[in-house]
Amino acid sequence: MPEIPRDSVGMVTPQKVHFDDPLALACGRTLPAYDLVFETYGELNAERSNAVLICHALSGHHHAAGFHDPEERKPGWWDAHIGPGKSIDTDRFFVVSLNNLGGCHGSTGPGSQNPETGHQWGPDFPMMTVLDWVQSQARLADHLGIERFAAVVGGSLGGMQAIQWALDYPERIANAVVIAATPKLSAQNIAFNEVARQAIRSDPDFHEGWYYEHGKVPRRGLKLARMVGHITYLSEDAMGSKFGRDLRSDDINFGYDVEFQVESYLRYQGDTFSTSFDANTYLLMTKVLDYFDPAAAHGGNLARALAPAKCPFLVVSFTTDWRFPPWRSRELTNALIRAGKDVSYANIDSPHGHDAFLMPESRYQAVFAAFMSRVARDQGLEARS
Amino acid sequence: MPEIPRDSVGMVTPQKVHFDDPLALACGRTLPAYDLVFETYGELNAERSNAVLICHALSGHHHAAGFHDPEERKPGWWDAHIGPGKSIDTDRFFVVSLNNLGGCHGSTGPGSQNPETGHQWGPDFPMMTVLDWVQSQARLADHLGIERFAAVVGGSLGGMQAIQWALDYPERIANAVVIAATPKLSAQNIAFNEVARQAIRSDPDFHEGWYYEHGKVPRRGLKLARMVGHITYLSEDAMGSKFGRDLRSDDINFGYDVEFQVESYLRYQGDTFSTSFDANTYLLMTKVLDYFDPAAAHGGNLARALAPAKCPFLVVSFTTDWRFPPWRSRELTNALIRAGKDVSYANIDSPHGHDAFLMPESRYQAVFAAFMSRVARDQGLEARS
Repeated sequence: MPEIPRDSVGMVTPQKVHFDDPLALACGRTLPAYDLVFETYGELNAERSNAVLICHALSGHHHAAGFHDPEERKPGWWDAHIGPGKSIDTDRFFVVSLNNLGGCHGSTGPGSQNPETGHQWGPDFPMMTVLDWVQSQARLADHLGIERFAAVVGGSLGGMQAIQWALDYPERIANAVVIAATPKLSAQNIAFNEVARQAIRSDPDFHEGWYYEHGKVPRRGLKLARMVGHITYLSEDAMGSKFGRDLRSDDINFGYDVEFQVESYLRYQGDTFSTSFDANTYLLMTKVLDYFDPAAAHGGNLARALAPAKCPFLVVSFTTDWRFPPWRSRELTNALIRAGKDVSYANIDSPHGHDAFLMPESRYQAVFAAFMSRVARDQGLEARS
Repeated sequence: MPEIPRDSVGMVTPQKVHFDDPLALACGRTLPAYDLVFETYGELNAERSNAVLICHALSGHHHAAGFHDPEERKPGWWDAHIGPGKSIDTDRFFVVSLNNLGGCHGSTGPGSQNPETGHQWGPDFPMMTVLDWVQSQARLADHLGIERFAAVVGGSLGGMQAIQWALDYPERIANAVVIAATPKLSAQNIAFNEVARQAIRSDPDFHEGWYYEHGKVPRRGLKLARMVGHITYLSEDAMGSKFGRDLRSDDINFGYDVEFQVESYLRYQGDTFSTSFDANTYLLMTKVLDYFDPAAAHGGNLARALAPAKCPFLVVSFTTDWRFPPWRSRELTNALIRAGKDVSYANIDSPHGHDAFLMPESRYQAVFAAFMSRVARDQGLEARS
């Protein structure tokens, strides 16, 4: 059995809560009832003032830190930043991390049973938006007795949820941490998402989304979608220094088997993903990204859209992120400043592209930890260790 | 009938030449016999000193300028730069433009008959490299009685052929024009090519490349490959200013039909391409790109690899090209300088990304035309008009 590191939250067990209150969605439809799966790390204090909500990105889920099983080789996806003494210090904070609606890791989504038909929802699952997620997260907070989060924190699509929290529930969020995000997708971002969607939807095993009933999985499409995604998550530099033009074997084989290491890496990433992720969920998550645009209802004026926010913001970007480049974070930061908000911004020098938000990096950790210490101080929290 | 512009080469007719001399290829195999399809514009002078070879890029072909048919709405792919009074002035130069081996526009390729089997070559067509193409182009020059080209010119993959000409036939090329190219692909470039290949090869209609015999075309794969390609040809800015986040209809429809204009554009480009291009050719062209790396045989020392070249070079890049960014052209330029070659380099301010090499742009045209005027002067050519 691998030893669990001292700065880990250790073994964790997901919880599930069922909601019977119908959820009215931005698309005009209503989700009659739903489950949310979540994990918590640390302890909620008596004042219920130390809760931090973690919002996940496109392919994320509730398992952000610790281990589900002593044999698990990898901890949760944000273990680098959540744990005793880490940026989100579980000796101070009570951390809540959920799987969003539409997901494929236990919360109600396309793979869940549609109570009206008794069959899986499949492509009939209603379209989600960041607004709907934030609403469902607020209900989860109600269920946990959390009136106000000390911070709502997320990277990439997770950062968009933190922004939306500040707009929709300004009284229920004390701080927002928005990492490697953007106030809206660019045409190029949408274009990459569209390629991923077309890859999945044109797979003959997709069956218009009813693949469950056909006993099929559109693996080829999911694999391609993930391969495209992976290129955009890594910086050109990171890919270059990781693989360069290294050949897998000694010589060029003048054929279509794997020749370059980068091909091997991408195929492996795509294959692994295609056996573990749901295609309808992937489609839905890309649309949630495309739709996010809080300024749209304000004639494109982002500062005006941000007016309802009351909390301080930490905005973080990474120099080599070309999916949501630093200028997108500065766009958000400048709009927050124009809107008269309290905002700290850091552009972190990192070779890792968009994926940098998942990694430990000393300057990133320093900025993140310093902000979270301020959050703790402002909430009157003391470290227990 | 649309009127043919005065600065057009006008109506042109492709020619075909058959070669019976076997062509020994870099992959170790031999092409026993082959056809090359080409077009010419302008007239070869008595001294045979005014010939310019145009080398095409990934999805290009021999039809670079003028019209095949009075009803044709679009001229050849490089009509902006080839014609009377244009950068490659057909009043001065005799221009030769061919379809490369492995192509799908008339030259011998995977869709041609394999003389040994009587069936189409399909995936048995031998793998090509830039070296093989240059060899076949030299034979075409022999056939046309051209001992030495005044210039060999190409953009993107075409530029790689111009470089290879200078290395393999230093006595037969008076000038090389290398536009929006790179001395070798990056890991990210290879990664995008690999996604395109996997899209085609995982299409159930691909049949391991024997789709002709199955009466099928792997359209879905080709469409995806082209969609991915198109994202890399356009700059983020160009895509943003062309489409932004504009919706196709007035409202978000919360579904998977086209919502944003950029989706509509990509689907259209992909669909059109998938009905006009051959999948085996596309696969082969991406591999030719991946393999190009003249420095590899010299321990990665590009300057040493460029030593055999004798001709002056014009190297051109475009500021927003992120497929082969300006620094790749500077890498080539610096190596040429280190190798003691005559090189002119221009980085052109353009919003159009990699596609800029196909477009008319005043500074680009000025640099290109000035260099070609020098070529004409050095060859003792006078404009006839």
